[in-house]
Amino acid sequence: KTNFKIAVLSGDGIGPEVVAESIKILDAIAEAFHYQFEFKYGLVGAEAIFKTGNPLPDETLEICKESDALLFGAIGDPSFDNNPDAKVRPEQGLLKLRKELGLFANIRPLKTYNSLIEKSPLKKEIIEGTDIQIFRELVSGIYFGEKFTDEEAGYAYDICKYNREEIAPIVHMAFQEAQKRRKKLTLIDKANVLDTSRLWRKVCKEIAAEYPDVELDFMFVDNAAMQLILNPKQFDVIVTENMFGDIISDEASVIGGSIGLLPSASIGHENAMFEPIHGSYPQAKGKGIANPIASILSTAMMLDYLKLDHAAEKLRASVEYAIENKYVTVDLNSEQPYSTSEVGSFIADYI
Amino acid sequence: KTNFKIAVLSGDGIGPEVVAESIKILDAIAEAFHYQFEFKYGLVGAEAIFKTGNPLPDETLEICKESDALLFGAIGDPSFDNNPDAKVRPEQGLLKLRKELGLFANIRPLKTYNSLIEKSPLKKEIIEGTDIQIFRELVSGIYFGEKFTDEEAGYAYDICKYNREEIAPIVHMAFQEAQKRRKKLTLIDKANVLDTSRLWRKVCKEIAAEYPDVELDFMFVDNAAMQLILNPKQFDVIVTENMFGDIISDEASVIGGSIGLLPSASIGHENAMFEPIHGSYPQAKGKGIANPIASILSTAMMLDYLKLDHAAEKLRASVEYAIENKYVTVDLNSEQPYSTSEVGSFIADYI
Ligand SMILES: CC(C)[C@H](C(=O)O)[C@@H](O)C(=O)O
Ligand SMILES: CC(C)[C@H](C(=O)O)[C@@H](O)C(=O)O
Repeated sequence: KTNFKIAVLSGDGIGPEVVAESIKILDAIAEAFHYQFEFKYGLVGAEAIFKTGNPLPDETLEICKESDALLFGAIGDPSFDNNPDAKVRPEQGLLKLRKELGLFANIRPLKTYNSLIEKSPLKKEIIEGTDIQIFRELVSGIYFGEKFTDEEAGYAYDICKYNREEIAPIVHMAFQEAQKRRKKLTLIDKANVLDTSRLWRKVCKEIAAEYPDVELDFMFVDNAAMQLILNPKQFDVIVTENMFGDIISDEASVIGGSIGLLPSASIGHENAMFEPIHGSYPQAKGKGIANPIASILSTAMMLDYLKLDHAAEKLRASVEYAIENKYVTVDLNSEQPYSTSEVGSFIADYI
Repeated sequence: KTNFKIAVLSGDGIGPEVVAESIKILDAIAEAFHYQFEFKYGLVGAEAIFKTGNPLPDETLEICKESDALLFGAIGDPSFDNNPDAKVRPEQGLLKLRKELGLFANIRPLKTYNSLIEKSPLKKEIIEGTDIQIFRELVSGIYFGEKFTDEEAGYAYDICKYNREEIAPIVHMAFQEAQKRRKKLTLIDKANVLDTSRLWRKVCKEIAAEYPDVELDFMFVDNAAMQLILNPKQFDVIVTENMFGDIISDEASVIGGSIGLLPSASIGHENAMFEPIHGSYPQAKGKGIANPIASILSTAMMLDYLKLDHAAEKLRASVEYAIENKYVTVDLNSEQPYSTSEVGSFIADYI
């Protein structure tokens, strides 16, 4: 297959700017490798609320379902953040998209670059050489369990629920990834308190029998929050449930010092979405200073997913070349910064 | 009042060693300030399971209920950690103790010491000057909500539940603490996803009206996990629910680089417990290398609680004197380390 339908949901803030660079890159790749990418654009997030009243219009969902893969920018707008009572919110679009497309595995690689190590808030000897792959379950747990508020009586609840079928697929993916890497998988949970965590442990242990070459260990989430700072190098692949994954993966994303470089993939049985992990960063919108590399590396993950291995390899090499030569935006090089589009063009040209 | 009943639950691992130093200190304070402390000892944790089969024997609970305050060591033993299927576990003793005594507010101060700043995993310019007080709700939420596992069907759930009465008391405490400090309170929640978080926000906003001099702000827990590493100085007082508090307070505890110094208090309407935040650290048991300062500073928090302000002040000054003069254990001074009991005696003598 050489012809691909790509859904493009740029969203809010710097989303459109960084996604534009990904598209520039895909055009360069199409030319170099003789592929065809057909882009279809959809509204999502605050942008979609302003224009249609709906953070995920049906039309957008249709475009996504018909696509081979989906490029996502970012969502979120200060007008909603400052108004927690707003009934319709950009986040709802993202959560609905995950659920409707069944994107059960959120994958976040955390890699450090030697040339950028001094950007880390952690001391060099602690962060140097860290290379972690986090698998977060994305469509179940307390995010999607029953919720209830009784305004009168003043009480509320949220139910965290998991069944075996929701746990097993992502655990298999994480074991398979560990097999390709340093062969260590850590389940992060709170099995000393939660029934759902005990179920995760049980399922992981059962599945472990199919991957005898991978060492499986368990870590309580509170301890994991400490260990990520004290000794991040101890981790290889991490797998965890939705809420713990939200917290732990965000914590992990800053220890490398280069959140503007970090990509993510959200994979389902039939669809897949690729998204930089930095948010919409509204303060930088329209200034041409946003770092496009997280979006571009998300595009590389998309090429992996589409099994365009050579293209993915070439793209990653081009990104590393740009980083090593300091052809980067102001967040990574304040002395001689390049603009969002200059960095994108440099990488595209190198391809 | 000059006569106090103190329950002593030393627990497992290094618990007994560090609590012994707290008692040494209290004896010195009794002499210097003409108070009387009457100590009653109770079993808890793995120790209690081995001797009685119960991680919190009724007798222990009785001693606690009759006390003016409770000194706690640590719980946990490798024989349980390596056996996650054990039905009776040391943690159950701790959770039951919190619930039975109604210890709804877990308070953890995080202070950095200039002489120890180089121990932090964070860069000096980031951590220097950090001074945070965390209030974690301790007897409700997902820890104590209904739990259920259906082994056959392979599913499980945990319910996170809060009502206004469970939220308000700790929020008041946190506001009052903020008034005495830099007048900033941050609620950490996940109000973009959880109904219980939205209730927390609502209750906090209502209560804020009674503390017009305190600035209240809100932060999502995933962002908080990042901000604690990127810029911990932005925080003054933090308040949060049970599970988020478990994760965030453990993360916070390591950024200062001196977890062996950090105390905690768990306060209820009628009882109060004081506990070093480091765990049972079984590898160090019986070696005389455990740092007693976290336990000793927990004892200082107990003196605050008993309104023995002069004694508390004197004790804190003595601890700072020991730290500034490097009269500390091997974790903080590897060149010329002192033993657990030498450090305790040094501080007691100084009093
Ligand atoms: C926007 C929010 C609902 C979302 C989440 O919590 O999953 C975000 O934090 C993320 O991690 O993608
Ligand atoms: C031992 C465990 C149940 C406990 C908790 O999660 O509350 C511990 O982590 C703590 O923070 O005191």
